[in-house]
Amino acid sequence: VDPSAQRPATADPAPLAELIAELAPQLGNRGLLTAPVDVEPYLVDHRRLYRGRTLLVAAPATTAEVQAVVQACAARGIPIVPHGGNTSYCGGATPTESGVEVVLATTRLRQVRAVDPANNSITVEAGCRLADVQDAAAANGRLFPLSLGSEGSCTIGGNLSTNAGGTAVLRYGMMRELVLGLEVVLPDGRVLDQLRGLRKDNTGYDVKQLFIGAEGTLGVITAACLKLFPAPAGHATAWVGLASAADAVTLLGVLQSALGDALTTYELVPTIALDLVLEHVPDTTAPLSSNHPMHALVEVTLSALDSDLPARLEQALGAAHERGLVGDAVVASSLAQREALWKLRETIPEAQTREGASLKHDVAVPTSDVPAFIDAGRAIVERSIPGARLVAYGHLGDGNLHFNVSPPKLGAGPGNARDFLAHGPALKRELHDLVAQFRGSFSAEHGIGRLKVGELERYEDPVALDVMRRIKRALDPQGLMNPGKVLDDGR
Amino acid sequence: VDPSAQRPATADPAPLAELIAELAPQLGNRGLLTAPVDVEPYLVDHRRLYRGRTLLVAAPATTAEVQAVVQACAARGIPIVPHGGNTSYCGGATPTESGVEVVLATTRLRQVRAVDPANNSITVEAGCRLADVQDAAAANGRLFPLSLGSEGSCTIGGNLSTNAGGTAVLRYGMMRELVLGLEVVLPDGRVLDQLRGLRKDNTGYDVKQLFIGAEGTLGVITAACLKLFPAPAGHATAWVGLASAADAVTLLGVLQSALGDALTTYELVPTIALDLVLEHVPDTTAPLSSNHPMHALVEVTLSALDSDLPARLEQALGAAHERGLVGDAVVASSLAQREALWKLRETIPEAQTREGASLKHDVAVPTSDVPAFIDAGRAIVERSIPGARLVAYGHLGDGNLHFNVSPPKLGAGPGNARDFLAHGPALKRELHDLVAQFRGSFSAEHGIGRLKVGELERYEDPVALDVMRRIKRALDPQGLMNPGKVLDDGR
Repeated sequence: VDPSAQRPATADPAPLAELIAELAPQLGNRGLLTAPVDVEPYLVDHRRLYRGRTLLVAAPATTAEVQAVVQACAARGIPIVPHGGNTSYCGGATPTESGVEVVLATTRLRQVRAVDPANNSITVEAGCRLADVQDAAAANGRLFPLSLGSEGSCTIGGNLSTNAGGTAVLRYGMMRELVLGLEVVLPDGRVLDQLRGLRKDNTGYDVKQLFIGAEGTLGVITAACLKLFPAPAGHATAWVGLASAADAVTLLGVLQSALGDALTTYELVPTIALDLVLEHVPDTTAPLSSNHPMHALVEVTLSALDSDLPARLEQALGAAHERGLVGDAVVASSLAQREALWKLRETIPEAQTREGASLKHDVAVPTSDVPAFIDAGRAIVERSIPGARLVAYGHLGDGNLHFNVSPPKLGAGPGNARDFLAHGPALKRELHDLVAQFRGSFSAEHGIGRLKVGELERYEDPVALDVMRRIKRALDPQGLMNPGKVLDDGR
Repeated sequence: VDPSAQRPATADPAPLAELIAELAPQLGNRGLLTAPVDVEPYLVDHRRLYRGRTLLVAAPATTAEVQAVVQACAARGIPIVPHGGNTSYCGGATPTESGVEVVLATTRLRQVRAVDPANNSITVEAGCRLADVQDAAAANGRLFPLSLGSEGSCTIGGNLSTNAGGTAVLRYGMMRELVLGLEVVLPDGRVLDQLRGLRKDNTGYDVKQLFIGAEGTLGVITAACLKLFPAPAGHATAWVGLASAADAVTLLGVLQSALGDALTTYELVPTIALDLVLEHVPDTTAPLSSNHPMHALVEVTLSALDSDLPARLEQALGAAHERGLVGDAVVASSLAQREALWKLRETIPEAQTREGASLKHDVAVPTSDVPAFIDAGRAIVERSIPGARLVAYGHLGDGNLHFNVSPPKLGAGPGNARDFLAHGPALKRELHDLVAQFRGSFSAEHGIGRLKVGELERYEDPVALDVMRRIKRALDPQGLMNPGKVLDDGR
């Protein structure tokens, strides 16, 4: 972080005064924030990697107000940083240190415009929090399946702009697959109205796809029509002890064949992750009486007439046990037991934090390659940092691992956190090079933001990068939308 | 069709000789077709709406050969028409009458490059027929779910370029949702390599989305990595008698809640369609002993442990019958009975053809709006052509109807087929205007091609059209890829 950026925003007053004069009649006081205390929350990202400055925070409450802000900025060549729930892991919604940008906060765009249960769709504005959309769906007997750790604060606009993943991707896909229609304010202030609730529509290029995962660099998403699903009638959840990651991949295929799309969760948990949880997190107990090198958390989702699905899950696991594929397994017999099993998975990040600083990587490879990738990655970790401990866990069903590294046990390696963390950049380089060898992804869920711009330049196909730049120039010729994010624009 | 276009291709010999001299060493005789008898099949579309001319048919057998063809053409400003299985309903793969274009046939790009059952993915070249991909999946215990009437001749490249739909969209989505990765030769001859088999990858703009549904106007898709699913263990199929389309929509919601994603087919069949089938198609019998204004063909797909799913389907239909939602229903008790039920749905087009010429529309609206749309559309049909009969049937689960009109019964309206068909353009205009009022789609499955370029200009949001043109210019600045298709380029 540039120390000069620690100063409060000191914008050139001329464009600021002009902007405010133009926008105040339409946006009012609530829509234009300039006082340092009001602006402060928009300057620092969730992980505190960046501190930026800004000319002004605009908080439009309607699509027309978003247009007004974008048009006023475009006319003056002022860059815009779209900003939702501020939960980016990569600094994607934080202004740069320049102080010349306007932050466009979407949090007042929070209407649920329509719920259509018979069409299984919901139309919401970009500033709706994910949890609000889940609740609106549930109030209509429907499920909006996207589910993330930050669902209480992240917004739909951010979920769309980062093509969010989460814990239900195995069955329901990423955010992109949940979108029926979009409304977007383009960099020149025009509204692109593709807010349709259709499941089939082959009329020309599907231009809405461009804005999903573009992290606000091509326009401001203001509303979306999203897919809903019937509300589940319940769940059956199992914890499975396995000999290896390879057996976990095999069991995944067995369960998909046996149970079809009812299988909604398949998470990989190595023994080291379970041990850290049991050591550091209160009120946790080992789910199985025996020890196993690898574990899977498995969940099936029940539709209304699926009362025998838990029995079928037990039957499938029992058959896998008999053929030696499964070491041991338990199916939760109560809601409390289900929550206890999920807690063992969900508190891994917390347990790893309590064990000390860690080096984190968000990678994906083809599911079939996960075992070989873990072996090759472990060899790199152990060679690079003697005594360091690989904690590779996560969404095996999607080929997505949190490939995290905890420091050596006391006395077994680099003596302090700073020495350990100093290995980070070199290790990341080696691991991401390995990901590239596997034709994998160095950012499976979290996007590029500002943090991974250099990684994208290094690892992406140069032809694909050129296509991305052509699209950027075609839609944002002035380069005003979220500059310095996703693509290296020389700033 | 322009009568001058009926002449055989008479190309300017200079660029042709140059092209052949450049490409012959690499593509050989099999890869360069110029004899009229060899070229003829590429000049006329499946529905015989268009007859074009061409300089040359190039049939490259590898991605490198595709590059060579595209580079040679780009250097000389020669337009290219990508051509797969020639099953377009909209003339999307047929050259224009100009005779200056090269047809690039993908049918020799037909390798299955890899099948990865543990990753549930298959990597195939663009010229593979859809049925070949289904077979390769089945040989590995997997399902490739895209299924169309033309699956024996259409190619994967065409399915991708038109974002194909078909009979399994309710559960598995359109072709776009089945794509993990793409390889594309860009209009300048470079290869865009996005042939990854990842389910999560948020590294920059998802540029492969641009080429899906672009009908070859932005580049030539040469290969794709596609999603597979566990092979189904079987099916349970029902025919349901209903009082109305509104009840059919209600029952769809009931069955989705009861059976979840096991519900893979939900087709609407009005009595007039069933009656036409029973009258014209041999070996068909009424599925129910009672008469109903509306019918639904319902199918659930079984995974390995789902032996009681047919019983659950019967249970759900029985409960719906008790509350008065379902008039009558039968669940197929044998494979032969299942085939008999499907035949009643699949032979509707054939039965309608035997009843006389018909006026066809491929529309989609939100599923919840289908009943109101049918009522409003029927009023237009009956006012426009006295005695004409609406046969609106199809994929209710996707909101997609084949909104077809059969001529009046003998003596009840316009006396001959020509008089009847003369009403076509005015009726299409009124019905597509109605679709627009419902925020629907005038081309749900079949794309734009050449046939619907005018409709896209008329009905699409002008801002969206502008974005499409910007993308076209950004990727194909010379305008050489499939000119005159999708976007009106003034030719």
